[in-house]
Amino acid sequence: MDKGTIYMIPTTLGGESTSDIIPEDVKAQTIGLRHFIVENIKSARRYLRKIDRTFPIDESTFFILNKKTEPSELNSFMSPLYDGHNIGVISDAGCPGVADPGAAIVSLAHSTGIRVHPMVGPSSILLALMGSGFSGQKFTFHGYLPKERRDRISALKYYEGDTRKTGTTHLFMDTPFRNMNVLDDLLNNLADPTMICIACDISLPTQDIRTMSAKDWRDKAYDLAKRPAMFAIGIGQ
Amino acid sequence: MDKGTIYMIPTTLGGESTSDIIPEDVKAQTIGLRHFIVENIKSARRYLRKIDRTFPIDESTFFILNKKTEPSELNSFMSPLYDGHNIGVISDAGCPGVADPGAAIVSLAHSTGIRVHPMVGPSSILLALMGSGFSGQKFTFHGYLPKERRDRISALKYYEGDTRKTGTTHLFMDTPFRNMNVLDDLLNNLADPTMICIACDISLPTQDIRTMSAKDWRDKAYDLAKRPAMFAIGIGQ
Repeated sequence: MDKGTIYMIPTTLGGESTSDIIPEDVKAQTIGLRHFIVENIKSARRYLRKIDRTFPIDESTFFILNKKTEPSELNSFMSPLYDGHNIGVISDAGCPGVADPGAAIVSLAHSTGIRVHPMVGPSSILLALMGSGFSGQKFTFHGYLPKERRDRISALKYYEGDTRKTGTTHLFMDTPFRNMNVLDDLLNNLADPTMICIACDISLPTQDIRTMSAKDWRDKAYDLAKRPAMFAIGIGQ
Repeated sequence: MDKGTIYMIPTTLGGESTSDIIPEDVKAQTIGLRHFIVENIKSARRYLRKIDRTFPIDESTFFILNKKTEPSELNSFMSPLYDGHNIGVISDAGCPGVADPGAAIVSLAHSTGIRVHPMVGPSSILLALMGSGFSGQKFTFHGYLPKERRDRISALKYYEGDTRKTGTTHLFMDTPFRNMNVLDDLLNNLADPTMICIACDISLPTQDIRTMSAKDWRDKAYDLAKRPAMFAIGIGQ
């Protein structure tokens, strides 16, 4: 019997609509699956019902893969694949395997000869980069900034210096409740001409993507608290 | 009159189908536009006709933005926006503004108060990352490798060392006719346990994404010549 394939299934970035962010065939493929490895079972079920109101949740299997999952559990998550079933991996938001625990299952799949099929959907990293006007020839995503202010400032100053030296675009984020701290640190520590992009509420109706110098941001800063945001430092192309 | 918005329009990565890689609303938005800034006029027209066989090419305006475009020309490309028209930016393949000249127009837009709306579509960088099993918490895309073998090898060895030290995933590519040189350089210069992902023909029916150690790749290397490929060095999660 052929082994199943792992489908990496993107979901929304918090918005209600899927028709602007998920291709039709990706939805169709997703609806055909009955085995899932999910970061958050509530949001995964809500997403499945969103793309198909009649989706048979109760006939489906959900394994939970989050930060608390023991590596020893992963093997058992793979068992449907050996029975020839496909499995969908669903993250809490956006593309699985990028900044969530989903990569662990992909890694295991490769080591055991299971095919992995990544599907197209919204990535706040990529959408912010496309919308920034900064170089996409070379860029680094750093994930979450350090929690300690001193470490965060030194990271931001390193990104600024490296951008100036190499032209690399640096993307980073933080939990929404710390966004205003990040903004403070950017505006108080970066040089006037340094270009900063803030991409807020990406893919939502309230989306706001702006690139300005640190100097201009000081005049035009707005309230980012509780809104998901991606930050970038780069050189306007 | 309100100024127009710039829509960043993703296209296929060389495949024929769009239903698996372009959301319905992105197609609908694209079809409604009559002004475009495109990297390659032939492929842009072909794409528009693919998503709408009756698309009025002859009633549409196309500005060409490629490596040969003079920066002084960019201002004139923006004129429809000031007349209230939206403009679509279309790259040769995949997401505009990421590894193509499209970012220049976005940068200009930000400096003149024009809104930029990035739309969801296929990115070989992101799909390779999702399919690799490597860390997406921190990753760098390096674009094209250096042409000179000596420089290329030293870049690859730098990526290998940095991955080992920091866990960062390094993604890079080359023109398809040099893929076998890249593969040679990887297999002849990296340590046995170093993990390499090669994502070939991403989003095409012939897609092949595999992650193995350098040691295993030496036994299982296959012909990558003339096939678009994304390479990555990382640590399996």
